[in-house]
Amino acid sequence: MTDTAFHGVFPYLVSPIGDDGRVLDDVLARLVERLVAAGVHGLTPLGSTGEFAYLSWEQRQRIVAVTLEAAAGRVPVVPGVAATTTADAVRQARAFEALGADGILAVLEAYFPVPDDGVVAYFTAIAESVACPVVLYTNPTFQRSDLTLPAIRRLADVPNIAYLKDASTNTGRLLSIIGAVGDRLGVFAASSHIPVCVMMIGGLGWMAGPACLVPEQSVALYDLAAAGRWDEAMALQRDLWRINQVFAKYSLAACVKGGLQLQGYPVGDPLPPQPALTADGRAEVREVLAALGALEATEG
Amino acid sequence: MTDTAFHGVFPYLVSPIGDDGRVLDDVLARLVERLVAAGVHGLTPLGSTGEFAYLSWEQRQRIVAVTLEAAAGRVPVVPGVAATTTADAVRQARAFEALGADGILAVLEAYFPVPDDGVVAYFTAIAESVACPVVLYTNPTFQRSDLTLPAIRRLADVPNIAYLKDASTNTGRLLSIIGAVGDRLGVFAASSHIPVCVMMIGGLGWMAGPACLVPEQSVALYDLAAAGRWDEAMALQRDLWRINQVFAKYSLAACVKGGLQLQGYPVGDPLPPQPALTADGRAEVREVLAALGALEATEG
Amino acid sequence: MTDTAFHGVFPYLVSPIGDDGRVLDDVLARLVERLVAAGVHGLTPLGSTGEFAYLSWEQRQRIVAVTLEAAAGRVPVVPGVAATTTADAVRQARAFEALGADGILAVLEAYFPVPDDGVVAYFTAIAESVACPVVLYTNPTFQRSDLTLPAIRRLADVPNIAYLKDASTNTGRLLSIIGAVGDRLGVFAASSHIPVCVMMIGGLGWMAGPACLVPEQSVALYDLAAAGRWDEAMALQRDLWRINQVFAKYSLAACVKGGLQLQGYPVGDPLPPQPALTADGRAEVREVLAALGALEATEG
Amino acid sequence: MTDTAFHGVFPYLVSPIGDDGRVLDDVLARLVERLVAAGVHGLTPLGSTGEFAYLSWEQRQRIVAVTLEAAAGRVPVVPGVAATTTADAVRQARAFEALGADGILAVLEAYFPVPDDGVVAYFTAIAESVACPVVLYTNPTFQRSDLTLPAIRRLADVPNIAYLKDASTNTGRLLSIIGAVGDRLGVFAASSHIPVCVMMIGGLGWMAGPACLVPEQSVALYDLAAAGRWDEAMALQRDLWRINQVFAKYSLAACVKGGLQLQGYPVGDPLPPQPALTADGRAEVREVLAALGALEATEG
Repeated sequence: MTDTAFHGVFPYLVSPIGDDGRVLDDVLARLVERLVAAGVHGLTPLGSTGEFAYLSWEQRQRIVAVTLEAAAGRVPVVPGVAATTTADAVRQARAFEALGADGILAVLEAYFPVPDDGVVAYFTAIAESVACPVVLYTNPTFQRSDLTLPAIRRLADVPNIAYLKDASTNTGRLLSIIGAVGDRLGVFAASSHIPVCVMMIGGLGWMAGPACLVPEQSVALYDLAAAGRWDEAMALQRDLWRINQVFAKYSLAACVKGGLQLQGYPVGDPLPPQPALTADGRAEVREVLAALGALEATEG
Repeated sequence: MTDTAFHGVFPYLVSPIGDDGRVLDDVLARLVERLVAAGVHGLTPLGSTGEFAYLSWEQRQRIVAVTLEAAAGRVPVVPGVAATTTADAVRQARAFEALGADGILAVLEAYFPVPDDGVVAYFTAIAESVACPVVLYTNPTFQRSDLTLPAIRRLADVPNIAYLKDASTNTGRLLSIIGAVGDRLGVFAASSHIPVCVMMIGGLGWMAGPACLVPEQSVALYDLAAAGRWDEAMALQRDLWRINQVFAKYSLAACVKGGLQLQGYPVGDPLPPQPALTADGRAEVREVLAALGALEATEG
Repeated sequence: MTDTAFHGVFPYLVSPIGDDGRVLDDVLARLVERLVAAGVHGLTPLGSTGEFAYLSWEQRQRIVAVTLEAAAGRVPVVPGVAATTTADAVRQARAFEALGADGILAVLEAYFPVPDDGVVAYFTAIAESVACPVVLYTNPTFQRSDLTLPAIRRLADVPNIAYLKDASTNTGRLLSIIGAVGDRLGVFAASSHIPVCVMMIGGLGWMAGPACLVPEQSVALYDLAAAGRWDEAMALQRDLWRINQVFAKYSLAACVKGGLQLQGYPVGDPLPPQPALTADGRAEVREVLAALGALEATEG
Repeated sequence: MTDTAFHGVFPYLVSPIGDDGRVLDDVLARLVERLVAAGVHGLTPLGSTGEFAYLSWEQRQRIVAVTLEAAAGRVPVVPGVAATTTADAVRQARAFEALGADGILAVLEAYFPVPDDGVVAYFTAIAESVACPVVLYTNPTFQRSDLTLPAIRRLADVPNIAYLKDASTNTGRLLSIIGAVGDRLGVFAASSHIPVCVMMIGGLGWMAGPACLVPEQSVALYDLAAAGRWDEAMALQRDLWRINQVFAKYSLAACVKGGLQLQGYPVGDPLPPQPALTADGRAEVREVLAALGALEATEG
């Protein structure tokens, strides 16, 4: 039976880093507080939006520690583990579990292509190194590896591999995955999918950056979909989709960080040489957030 | 306001060609009869499944003529026009309209990349050469050009460009298109999308090869979705999705032709050097059709 | 032993087409005359530069007939055969041989991917349908199929498959091909390779669009390379490479047609919706031709 | 004027790591000794072959320190700096220069795409942080960023950016780069190019993994090419190319590590989940090395 302990809206937290490379604890804690207060169902630090690929090990640990402390057990915290080697991934996973993480979002980074056997060995090793549930993460656009359906079938047999998050744009692929292993893996969408569609085909929710900016609206969308009130859900979805469109046009981390600045959270910009949100992008994010009522709420 | 005169299930007809290169009129007419009897809402000869890229102009004309005669006005027939030059496309469109076509599915083939201005000029020229409605077709996987959102916006202003069919796998892109031009263009899905999801986000139906093999089930799915009975629709969708999975695994034309042979329609194989469906593929198609009750019905 | 009957510089001829769709016989004949006078070793109508993908069968036949008549046996004429079906390719090849073609440049066009067996069957059927030598053409950038090394090995066993022309940018791949089948297939480069490099690794010459514009310089380059005067060849190559750079930046057919117009050959523009050379591109082509002394020569 | 202080054959060193994650100092030092004795012109630890993407900062520092100590100033050592952030890259570069590195091979890793301004800022910051010369490295196949020609032009103006190493397969692109900035940047090839061709068009040499296995032959090839004895160079090149073909077929690091094991250097396998060389690959590497006389020499 699918594990549904994790479900709903898990915002991908940004990683606020100061000019000296130190994690900006206060603003991160304040963001966590605001998201929990808005009713989100969990928190995912160190996803793509969280710039895991740009942070040192020290920075990553601090991000997780601050998030866990701020969440204070009110919602599950599922940090991202991302590495090119199995040994490094296992070390990260153990350290995060020791800090108190409720689950691990597992990412395989690669330089040379990795065959299926290596992919399966990597994720299996992570799962066997911890007691908490593991979420498989696949993002064929930005990563140099992908999880094939046969690899997913094999990984679904590992006891604590309990979820999968797909960041492709191919929603049909999600239905195929649910058809194949939906009795063993719960499926989450990313911001590249339409959340309502993923909920309708059997998904548990979504893990995505935009939910940092519109958490109340995201939770409302989840509630409507979970209640099977599809027409109302779709009406809200139409409005919220504008945010995903802006995100696809500009860079993900730059958009969420830029939007949070507009909402009063000085989270800084993406780490160089990544560009900050352009003036045009900033204007477009502002317009979308205003249209969604997501500027006043936080500035009031 | 969106034109919804075309809606529902439009099977992509295969093109049955004999060893001598002649169109097999009888089996094509029989297939049309069976599909119309099953309640499909329209017919689309000369789509990807119809091997438009492999047929001579004489073969294409014959396919359209036979389809129109067999349909006898009971459902709209919307043949595909596909060319690398504007002049050739215009000639094809005029000829099909003269034969009685109810609409034109317009495809841009390319060798060298074409900039947006050329893309817009091409589709505009087709539309201006006929009085019937035109369906824009985009398939970034198999074609060497794509319709960008700015190009689609411009084309939506052409009076008789009334529909768009998207064969990407990116369902979110469809929602963006509907958000941008949904008041002027009606949107159809292809077999790469989940039909129920496309209906939920505002689509009119789907144009796809699999509907040749499971027309009754496809129409039932459409009816449930159109009635907003989403849970029942989704239950049926789960079963039907297996067919799309097989199609994505083997070649599209080979699968539909192979499946139709199993159902008693000797439509031949794809034109060489395209491979016929393999023995494994044939077994897999047979199994899926049997599971869907789509073998007995036609063999009885 | 490799067949070296074909060797040297084979310009890819453009296809001059009037607004009414008729081949502009006179300007094509005049271009052939000029190229033969400049000492080119052969002529290749209906390559990529010749817009084979944009021409009707009638236009293709006329292009070949006019070229053959103008060449009058002084150099070999090797027209391109390009089709998606084996039957169409065989028909084209036979017709061109009947017109007097000295060889066939064989191209496989594809919509759906074709496995190696189909690729081998296609090229074998073309070769078996004619008595003249066949040149395999592979262009992974613009075509939807490629010739793998195993497929090339199998095709090298077909008696009259005697040459291969590679239009990838991967010169190392050419050395691998020569290492594998160099005793049976003679290898020609395209404009994406550095001709002197291809000559040094064992190539026979090149088939390329730019040679339409700088035939004397191309022949001089070939002569230096064929004589093993590598340093002088390289000095000339450096100058000539500027033309290939411009071609890689703008569209191939548009560049050659635009350049020929500057040289006094009113060959028209690429067939719409392909764009004509832009004003910037035209200025850049003019500058390069002037620097190479390729404007005065023809305008004088 | 181009800096030619670095020239010739720079083997990409493998990174021998024990099961406990410790660098295997002895075998690395022995390999360096053997390569220097064979006459190589420089050494490049932490290239792609050196698995930079798989090593911790501690491992990277140790690899560089051991290499520098073993080389003992006899040849220049140019370690790779690879990072996703500018800050991390600058830290690495300074640390390597402090250890005694003679130059820096600079690599930009990326997760999200980086626009040209960011690319230029990244490499400029590295160069400005050290006094030694910097080699720009571009590998579009395995990296998620590329150096465009406009970016290269801008970077050529930075005083101590003195070289460029290109690991694309596009040799023509190298000629374009040399044409644009050859007076300011010296160009090195990678194993994806044919070394003799790159030397002929004006390159200074090559930085590549295969030279670990056949250093004497590589140096002989360089000497022939540098002396303009092109025909002899090409004859040797033909034999040596077989090694590059095997490398392109199997994984780069796995091949060099596997070959070194055959030659008596127990350097271990690539770090998991990367696969070790398969039995087939091992047999193929053994056969090629034997044919090149590269097994006896080292086993004797």
